[in-house]
Parts: sequence; structure tokens; C-alpha cells
Amino acid sequence: MARVGVVDTTFARVDMGSIAVDELKRNIAATVVRCTVPGVKDLPVAAKKLLEEEDCDMVMALGMPGMEEIDKICAHEASTGLIQAQLMTNKHIIEVFVHMDEAETEKELYQLTENRIRSHAHNVINLLLYPERLVKDAGMGKRQGYRDEGPIRQ
Amino acid sequence: MARVGVVDTTFARVDMGSIAVDELKRNIAATVVRCTVPGVKDLPVAAKKLLEEEDCDMVMALGMPGMEEIDKICAHEASTGLIQAQLMTNKHIIEVFVHMDEAETEKELYQLTENRIRSHAHNVINLLLYPERLVKDAGMGKRQGYRDEGPIRQ
Amino acid sequence: MARVGVVDTTFARVDMGSIAVDELKRNIAATVVRCTVPGVKDLPVAAKKLLEEEDCDMVMALGMPGMEEIDKICAHEASTGLIQAQLMTNKHIIEVFVHMDEAETEKELYQLTENRIRSHAHNVINLLLYPERLVKDAGMGKRQGYRDEGPIRQ
Amino acid sequence: MARVGVVDTTFARVDMGSIAVDELKRNIAATVVRCTVPGVKDLPVAAKKLLEEEDCDMVMALGMPGMEEIDKICAHEASTGLIQAQLMTNKHIIEVFVHMDEAETEKELYQLTENRIRSHAHNVINLLLYPERLVKDAGMGKRQGYRDEGPIRQ
Amino acid sequence: MARVGVVDTTFARVDMGSIAVDELKRNIAATVVRCTVPGVKDLPVAAKKLLEEEDCDMVMALGMPGMEEIDKICAHEASTGLIQAQLMTNKHIIEVFVHMDEAETEKELYQLTENRIRSHAHNVINLLLYPERLVKDAGMGKRQGYRDEGPIRQ
Repeated sequence: MARVGVVDTTFARVDMGSIAVDELKRNIAATVVRCTVPGVKDLPVAAKKLLEEEDCDMVMALGMPGMEEIDKICAHEASTGLIQAQLMTNKHIIEVFVHMDEAETEKELYQLTENRIRSHAHNVINLLLYPERLVKDAGMGKRQGYRDEGPIRQ
Repeated sequence: MARVGVVDTTFARVDMGSIAVDELKRNIAATVVRCTVPGVKDLPVAAKKLLEEEDCDMVMALGMPGMEEIDKICAHEASTGLIQAQLMTNKHIIEVFVHMDEAETEKELYQLTENRIRSHAHNVINLLLYPERLVKDAGMGKRQGYRDEGPIRQ
Repeated sequence: MARVGVVDTTFARVDMGSIAVDELKRNIAATVVRCTVPGVKDLPVAAKKLLEEEDCDMVMALGMPGMEEIDKICAHEASTGLIQAQLMTNKHIIEVFVHMDEAETEKELYQLTENRIRSHAHNVINLLLYPERLVKDAGMGKRQGYRDEGPIRQ
Repeated sequence: MARVGVVDTTFARVDMGSIAVDELKRNIAATVVRCTVPGVKDLPVAAKKLLEEEDCDMVMALGMPGMEEIDKICAHEASTGLIQAQLMTNKHIIEVFVHMDEAETEKELYQLTENRIRSHAHNVINLLLYPERLVKDAGMGKRQGYRDEGPIRQ
Repeated sequence: MARVGVVDTTFARVDMGSIAVDELKRNIAATVVRCTVPGVKDLPVAAKKLLEEEDCDMVMALGMPGMEEIDKICAHEASTGLIQAQLMTNKHIIEVFVHMDEAETEKELYQLTENRIRSHAHNVINLLLYPERLVKDAGMGKRQGYRDEGPIRQ
């Protein structure tokens, strides 16, 4: 049975991890290992520990960077670290970041967050179990949390 | 027989992988291993897995970053990771990124994308089989997808 | 007994390390190993040495970047290095940076610094001993040094 | 006999590699191994392969980034990778980049390029064979391709 | 006896290495190994070679980035590499950079450079031999080359 790690933050304003676990559990019979860290910069090592010490096959790294310039830099540092962690383990970490300035209202932000997480959970499932589905979707302008942009034609 | 990996994204609005496979297959008798990931930040580990787990000799990493500032940052993170992956494997990964703001119309964007991929497929072929052709083109102001700028003279 | 490393700087204008040691000692029976380096760019290797040579289980890396553009870049370089150090050791380093332009007066800056350090000391304790408490706080909009933003609802 | 690697690009508008080979050959009895890659982002792994697979003692990595913002980012990514490659091999890679916006006319750009390459070829020779000459030039405000700025006095 | 490496550049306009060697020699009985490289981007591998091949315990990496935007980027790349080199060796490299735009006149620039180097030489000595002195100075707002800012009080 596949093992999927889920790590989120106490900084986020939505319990992102629970949504991820819910979507994964609804759709596949995987063991899900969850943990939570303070902020997005703590995600890379937490994800790597899930992959190496908890023997996960893949990890979802969930975060909600704030609106300030410094938050953008933190997100960049976290993303860089998440890519490094993947290269060190040869396993995918699917980053699901929702920036707090992506929505006008809290309600919209919640909805965007939920949609993006559920959508990326299916990316995880496909990468793990149905990689051919992703190949079929290549170039389809998929967006997670927003409406797909769709493909452009010749 | 050479093994070439091709990895593209579902985020892109053109099926970039199919164009790459087509151009490679038309020109060399290589085994092409293809996969697709959600976005450009997933390319580095996917490329590294193709090199190490699928035993590819070289990889084309294809992506189409969006128009927003955040997309530029994602592309930068992806490129940094692709360079790291190469240094960890001592194998080339040819990055083929087309930025969505490089063209005015969807039609132009499609054409630019196709041209750049086909052009870079020949770079892959040359790196693999005919490195001396690249030396002959050193300093020739080659551009992939645009008209070559050509060399400047003394 | 847990071993926690604490490293701070002579550049900072508050004796951050002493506050961290105080908060840790008040709350858990851990061995605390402390050292001090000149500036934030010296923190990554110092933290890594605490983890590897002093056998610490976790490290708090404390710094106070200045107000100039160059200070922001230094902080970014330090943060990047701290993430790398974590990935190389599979152990958490909790970064506690207070930017000198986060407060209007010296008094406020001192208070913010103290609050943030004490708050992050509890993150360290939870990561070490009570990880389930962090899961319970997932998505609660926790802030260290400022008032929590709290969760947003559906 | 020393082995020096030279790698340049087809993107550049000057055959930079040939100038480097010429200057090296005029001045030392070294074996020069040359290759060419498409663009500056392909230089790091090519340089590392010259150091590790072709057993070079040092490498000159030659590139000519374009004028656009994206070209500056590519150059930054390439430089970061070249530094990483050096740290992974404990050998020097001398980066010789000429930015296309450093000169007003094509003629000036050609001259600047040639001067900088020839000047850096001597840095390579000195690092390899006469490191004491570099110590003698410490703090002399040397510039490659422009007039030296010279030292400032107390 | 401690071994300290000193590496500086021919790009700088002050013979930074000689000042560092002088200050170290005046204060401790250490073996000092000196070398010089062309520019700041050559410092990381040179420092790592001093640590690994010359068996130094610590290194001072001295540079003087220019005033242009490109020089700031070079300094950032160099700093990132210096941090990486430290993480790969578990040894400190004390970076001493003086930006050419930090002073109004050449005379002031010289004085700032000399002060900063001598001041950082004492950081090296303390890190090597008297780490408890640095702990005593934690949070004291130390500045190298400028007047200390001093601590702020509650």
C-alpha cells in the first residue's frame, strides 16, 4: 500500500493538512502520515524526513505565505528547499502554496485553498498510481484552484 | 541505442512532450521515455528520475511558465533545480521553457513553442551524437524559436 | 534527555540566545548547548556543527538583520543556508529572525524580539516532544511575536 | 602536462572558445579539451564533465548573456551552478561572461569579448602554474576587458 | 598550532589579504596560508581548497564588490557559495566583503576596508580559540568597520 506524507503549517489560516488527508483517503487506499510545522521554511526538512524516516513514497507540502515582501521571499526559500529535498531523495514532493493575496475575501481564500489542495491530491494520486493520466493531460493548461486555461491550438 | 527522456507539464497550454518525441523520433533511432508532471517545479526530480531510474542519457525538460511575477519565480526555482540535477548526475538536461508572454497571440505562442522544441531537440541530438557540430556553431548567435542573431565580426 | 542547540550573533542588538536558553530551561529538562557567531551568514554552519558535532537534536538559529537592502540579502542567504543544513542533517533548525525595521522604537523591537524567541522556543519543544500539538494548531494562523491571525472559516 | 577545459555556447555571437584556446596555446604547453553547448545554463554540467570525465585541471566557461531581464536571470542561474560545480570538484572554473549590453556597437562588443577572454586565460594560467603572481596582484583593481582600476592608497 | 587560510582577489582595490595576515600574525601564533583569486566568485572553491587540501581550520574570504547591479549579483552568488562551502566542510569561512559604494572617497574606502578586516580577524581568532568571548558579546550590536550600534534595552 502506498504511503503518502502530508505536512502543513500552523502559520496557515486554513487546516490544509486535514483537507489533503480527506481527499487522499476518499480516493485511494493509502497510508497517510501527517505532521505540522510552524512555517513554510520548516517544510523542506519535514518533507524529507517523511520520505526518508517515515518511508513515504510521496509528500504533499502545504503552506500559505503571507502578503508582505518578506513572505514572498520565505516562500521562495521554501520552494528552493523543497526542490532540493526531492533531488536528494528521488521522490516527488507536491508543493501546494496558496498566497494570502490570491483572494479578495476570507471566504474566497478558503475556497481557493480547498480547491487547490483537492486538485493537487489528485496529482499526487496520478503520479503515484496513474502516471499515464498525466501524460494524457500534458499541455491541457490545467490550473489547481482556478479554472483550467485549456490547451491552445495550432 | 541512446535513451532520451522527455518530461513536460499539464500546466502548459501546448502538448510540448509530443512535439519533442516527434522531432526526436524523426531524426534518430533512440528510445524515448516520456512522462508528465503538474508544473515546472516538478520537472527537476522527474528529470533526475529519468536519468537515474530510467537510465536515460539525456533529458528534455519542457515547461510553459505563466505571465505573473510568481510564475517567473517558479521558473527560476525550476531552472535552478534542473542545473542541480545535472550536476548530481553528470548528464545534460536541456531546458525548453516558453514564457506565455513571449507571444502576442495564441497562434504565435503555439508556433514559437513548436519551433523552440524542435530546435532544442536537435541540440539534444547533437550533444548526444554529434558534439563537433555544436563546436562548429560556437558563437553563431543561435536562437531556438526565434531567428538566429548570427555572429558578429571583428 | 533532549539536546537543543542555540546559536545567535554579536550583530544583533538583543542578547537573543539568553532569552532562548531561559525559555527552554523554564519548560523542559533539556541540555542546551549555546554558541555565538558574528552575523547571520555564520549561522548555517554553526547550526550544522551543533547538530553534528555537539549531537543536538534541534537548533534555534537567532538573528537580527539590519534595515538596508544588503541586510535583506544577507538574511536571504542565511535562510537558504539554514534550509540546506537541515536537509543535510534531517534535523530541524528553527530560524528566529527579527528584522530591525519591524518595530518603530527600540523598546518595541526588544519586546517583539523577546516574544518571538519565547514563542518559537515552544515550537522547538513541540517539534521535539509534542508533535501532535502542532497538528492540532495546523491552520490556526499562528504568529510568533505578533498576535495570531487565527483561522478563517469556510 | 596540464589539461584545461574550454566550454562555450552557440548562443554567443562570438566564437569565444577559439579565442580562449588560442590564448592558452600561445602561452602554455597544455592539453586543451574543448566543447560547446547551446546556452549558459548548459555550462555548469559541461564544465563539471570536463573536470571529472575528461580529467581537466581547470575549466574556462564562456558565455554571452543577452540584454533582457530573462537573460540576466539565466546568467545568475548559470553562475550559481558554476560555483556549485567547483565546490563539488574542488577545482576552479573561471567564468567569462560578456553581457551583450556592455558595449554600444558590435565592434566594441567583439573587442571587449576578445580582451576579456585573453585576460582571463592568463588568470587560468596563473592559477594553474604561477599562483604567486596572483598574490602579487592582490588588491590591484584588475579588470578583464576594461582598463584596470588600480589600487587605492591609504 | 591553528592553521588559518586567507584568500582575497585581484579585483579588489586594496591588498586585503596582507592586512588580514598582518592582524592575524600580530595576535596569534597561527600558520597562515594565503592565496589570491581573480574575483569574488572564485572565492568559494578557493576557500574550500584551503580548508580541505591545505588543512586550514578556518578561512577568511576577502572581497570588494563593485558598484554596479551586476556586482551586487556576483557578491550574492559568492556569498551563497561560501555558505555552501562551509556546510560541506563543517568549518567556518568568515566573509569580509567591502562594497565599493560604502564610502565616499578612496581614502575612506581604504580605512573602512582595513578596519573591517582587522575587526573580522578578531572574530576568526575568537571563533578558533575563545568562543566564550563571542557569547559574552551576543546581542551587543557589533559592527565591523563601522561604530558598534550597541545593545538595546528592555
